[in-house]
Amino acid sequence: MGSIVVDVMLKPEILDPQGQAVAGALPRLGFDGFTDVRQGKRFVLTVDGDVTDEHLTAAREAAEKLLSNPVIEDVVAVRVLDEGAGESEDDEQ
Amino acid sequence: MGSIVVDVMLKPEILDPQGQAVAGALPRLGFDGFTDVRQGKRFVLTVDGDVTDEHLTAAREAAEKLLSNPVIEDVVAVRVLDEGAGESEDDEQ
Repeated sequence: MGSIVVDVMLKPEILDPQGQAVAGALPRLGFDGFTDVRQGKRFVLTVDGDVTDEHLTAAREAAEKLLSNPVIEDVVAVRVLDEGAGESEDDEQ
Repeated sequence: MGSIVVDVMLKPEILDPQGQAVAGALPRLGFDGFTDVRQGKRFVLTVDGDVTDEHLTAAREAAEKLLSNPVIEDVVAVRVLDEGAGESEDDEQ
Protein backbone atom coordinates (compact mmCIF):
# COMPACT_ATOMS: atom_id res chain seq x y z
CA MET A 1 0.00 0.00 0.00
CA GLY A 2 1.62 3.21 -1.18
CA SER A 3 0.86 6.82 -0.54
CA ILE A 4 1.35 10.07 -2.39
CA VAL A 5 1.80 13.37 -0.60
CA VAL A 6 0.49 16.58 -2.13
CA ASP A 7 1.57 19.85 -0.53
CA VAL A 8 -0.45 22.98 -1.25
CA MET A 9 0.51 26.46 -0.04
CA LEU A 10 -1.06 29.88 -0.51
CA LYS A 11 0.76 31.88 -3.16
CA PRO A 12 3.39 34.17 -1.59
CA GLU A 13 1.42 37.30 -2.50
CA ILE A 14 -1.76 36.06 -0.80
CA LEU A 15 -2.35 37.15 2.80
CA ASP A 16 -2.21 34.24 5.24
CA PRO A 17 -4.00 35.18 8.49
CA GLN A 18 -3.59 31.68 9.98
CA GLY A 19 0.15 31.84 9.43
CA GLN A 20 0.27 35.35 10.88
CA ALA A 21 -1.61 34.18 13.97
CA VAL A 22 0.97 31.43 14.48
CA ALA A 23 3.83 33.88 13.85
CA GLY A 24 2.38 36.17 16.50
CA ALA A 25 1.92 33.36 19.01
CA LEU A 26 5.42 31.89 18.71
CA PRO A 27 7.29 34.71 20.53
CA ARG A 28 4.59 34.81 23.24
CA LEU A 29 5.40 31.15 23.92
CA GLY A 30 9.12 31.84 24.00
CA PHE A 31 9.95 30.72 20.47
CA ASP A 32 12.06 33.51 19.01
CA GLY A 33 14.01 33.52 15.79
CA PHE A 34 11.17 32.83 13.37
CA THR A 35 10.50 35.75 11.06
CA ASP A 36 7.50 34.43 9.16
CA VAL A 37 5.03 31.55 9.19
CA ARG A 38 2.86 30.35 6.31
CA GLN A 39 0.22 27.66 6.73
CA GLY A 40 -0.80 25.33 3.96
CA LYS A 41 -2.38 21.96 3.36
CA ARG A 42 -0.94 18.49 3.11
CA PHE A 43 -2.90 15.67 1.47
CA VAL A 44 -1.98 12.00 1.71
CA LEU A 45 -3.55 9.94 -1.09
CA THR A 46 -3.43 6.19 -0.55
CA VAL A 47 -3.35 3.69 -3.42
CA ASP A 48 -3.64 -0.07 -3.55
CA GLY A 49 -0.25 -1.62 -4.08
CA ASP A 50 2.81 0.36 -5.05
CA VAL A 51 2.64 3.87 -6.41
CA THR A 52 3.01 3.87 -10.19
CA ASP A 53 3.76 6.68 -12.61
CA GLU A 54 0.05 6.62 -13.55
CA HIS A 55 -0.88 7.26 -9.92
CA LEU A 56 1.59 10.14 -9.74
CA THR A 57 0.27 11.64 -12.97
CA ALA A 58 -3.31 11.36 -11.70
CA ALA A 59 -2.27 12.86 -8.36
CA ARG A 60 -0.59 15.82 -10.07
CA GLU A 61 -3.72 16.46 -12.13
CA ALA A 62 -5.99 16.07 -9.09
CA ALA A 63 -3.72 18.44 -7.17
CA GLU A 64 -4.26 21.17 -9.75
CA LYS A 65 -7.96 20.49 -10.33
CA LEU A 66 -9.34 19.52 -6.92
CA LEU A 67 -6.82 19.89 -4.11
CA SER A 68 -5.76 23.45 -4.83
CA ASN A 69 -7.35 26.67 -5.98
CA PRO A 70 -4.95 27.84 -8.69
CA VAL A 71 -6.03 31.46 -8.26
CA ILE A 72 -4.64 31.70 -4.73
CA GLU A 73 -2.67 28.48 -4.13
CA ASP A 74 0.39 26.69 -5.49
CA VAL A 75 0.93 22.93 -5.55
CA VAL A 76 4.45 22.93 -4.13
CA ALA A 77 5.09 19.18 -4.13
CA VAL A 78 3.64 15.88 -5.33
CA ARG A 79 5.76 12.97 -4.16
CA VAL A 80 5.72 9.37 -3.05
CA LEU A 81 5.52 8.95 0.71
CA ASP A 82 8.10 6.51 1.98
CA GLU A 83 6.39 4.81 4.91
CA GLY A 84 9.80 4.14 6.38
CA ALA A 85 12.19 6.73 7.70
CA GLY A 86 11.74 9.53 5.22
CA GLU A 87 10.20 10.82 2.07
CA SER A 88 11.49 10.20 -1.39
CA GLU A 89 11.08 11.30 -4.97
CA ASP A 90 10.74 14.97 -4.19
CA ASP A 91 9.04 16.96 -6.87
CA GLU A 92 9.26 20.40 -5.33
CA GLN A 93 8.56 23.10 -7.89
CA MET B 1 17.04 32.91 4.59
CA GLY B 2 16.12 29.37 5.57
CA SER B 3 12.84 27.68 6.16
CA ILE B 4 11.63 24.77 8.25
CA VAL B 5 8.65 22.67 7.24
CA VAL B 6 6.38 21.16 9.89
CA ASP B 7 3.85 18.58 8.74
CA VAL B 8 0.89 17.80 10.99
CA MET B 9 -1.69 15.08 10.29
CA LEU B 10 -4.72 13.86 12.19
CA LYS B 11 -3.97 10.64 14.05
CA PRO B 12 -5.02 7.59 11.99
CA GLU B 13 -7.85 6.75 14.39
CA ILE B 14 -9.39 10.25 14.15
CA LEU B 15 -12.16 10.75 11.60
CA ASP B 16 -11.14 13.10 8.77
CA PRO B 17 -14.26 14.50 7.07
CA GLN B 18 -12.24 16.83 4.83
CA GLY B 19 -10.18 13.94 3.55
CA GLN B 20 -13.31 11.85 3.06
CA ALA B 21 -14.88 14.65 1.02
CA VAL B 22 -11.82 14.73 -1.23
CA ALA B 23 -11.82 10.92 -1.49
CA GLY B 24 -15.47 11.04 -2.56
CA ALA B 25 -14.87 13.79 -5.12
CA LEU B 26 -11.87 12.17 -6.83
CA PRO B 27 -13.80 9.38 -8.63
CA ARG B 28 -16.52 11.85 -9.64
CA LEU B 29 -13.80 13.84 -11.43
CA GLY B 30 -12.43 10.73 -13.09
CA PHE B 31 -9.53 10.09 -10.73
CA ASP B 32 -9.76 6.42 -9.83
CA GLY B 33 -7.26 4.29 -8.01
CA PHE B 34 -7.07 6.23 -4.77
CA THR B 35 -8.42 4.28 -1.82
CA ASP B 36 -8.13 6.88 0.92
CA VAL B 37 -7.34 10.56 1.42
CA ARG B 38 -6.25 12.27 4.62
CA GLN B 39 -5.87 16.02 4.90
CA GLY B 40 -3.42 17.67 7.24
CA LYS B 41 -1.53 20.90 7.74
CA ARG B 42 1.82 22.10 6.51
CA PHE B 43 3.60 25.00 8.19
CA VAL B 44 6.60 26.81 6.74
CA LEU B 45 8.59 28.67 9.41
CA THR B 46 11.10 31.17 8.05
CA VAL B 47 14.27 32.12 9.91
CA ASP B 48 16.89 34.78 9.34
CA GLY B 49 20.01 33.25 7.84
CA ASP B 50 20.60 29.54 7.68
CA VAL B 51 18.62 27.03 9.69
CA THR B 52 20.58 25.93 12.75
CA ASP B 53 20.08 23.00 15.10
CA GLU B 54 18.66 25.49 17.63
CA HIS B 55 16.03 26.54 15.10
CA LEU B 56 15.15 22.92 14.43
CA THR B 57 14.89 22.15 18.14
CA ALA B 58 12.66 25.19 18.67
CA ALA B 59 10.55 24.20 15.66
CA ARG B 60 10.09 20.66 17.00
CA GLU B 61 9.00 22.03 20.38
CA ALA B 62 6.68 24.59 18.75
CA ALA B 63 5.25 21.83 16.57
CA GLU B 64 4.23 19.85 19.65
CA LYS B 65 3.06 22.83 21.73
CA LEU B 66 1.47 25.22 19.24
CA LEU B 67 1.18 23.80 15.73
CA SER B 68 -0.50 20.52 16.65
CA ASN B 69 -3.09 19.29 19.09
CA PRO B 70 -1.43 16.18 20.53
CA VAL B 71 -4.79 14.68 21.48
CA ILE B 72 -5.88 14.32 17.87
CA GLU B 73 -2.83 15.13 15.72
CA ASP B 74 0.66 13.82 15.05
CA VAL B 75 3.65 15.89 14.00
CA VAL B 76 4.81 13.67 11.15
CA ALA B 77 7.82 15.69 10.00
CA VAL B 78 10.00 18.64 10.98
CA ARG B 79 12.63 19.30 8.35
CA VAL B 80 14.69 21.94 6.62
CA LEU B 81 13.13 23.20 3.41
CA ASP B 82 15.63 23.26 0.59
CA GLU B 83 14.58 26.27 -1.48
CA GLY B 84 16.14 24.59 -4.49
CA ALA B 85 14.84 21.48 -6.16
CA GLY B 86 13.68 19.43 -3.22
CA GLU B 87 13.49 18.96 0.50
CA SER B 88 16.24 17.64 2.71
CA GLU B 89 16.94 16.44 6.23
CA ASP B 90 13.79 14.41 6.53
CA ASP B 91 12.69 13.70 10.05
CA GLU B 92 9.61 11.64 9.34
CA GLN B 93 8.46 9.75 12.40
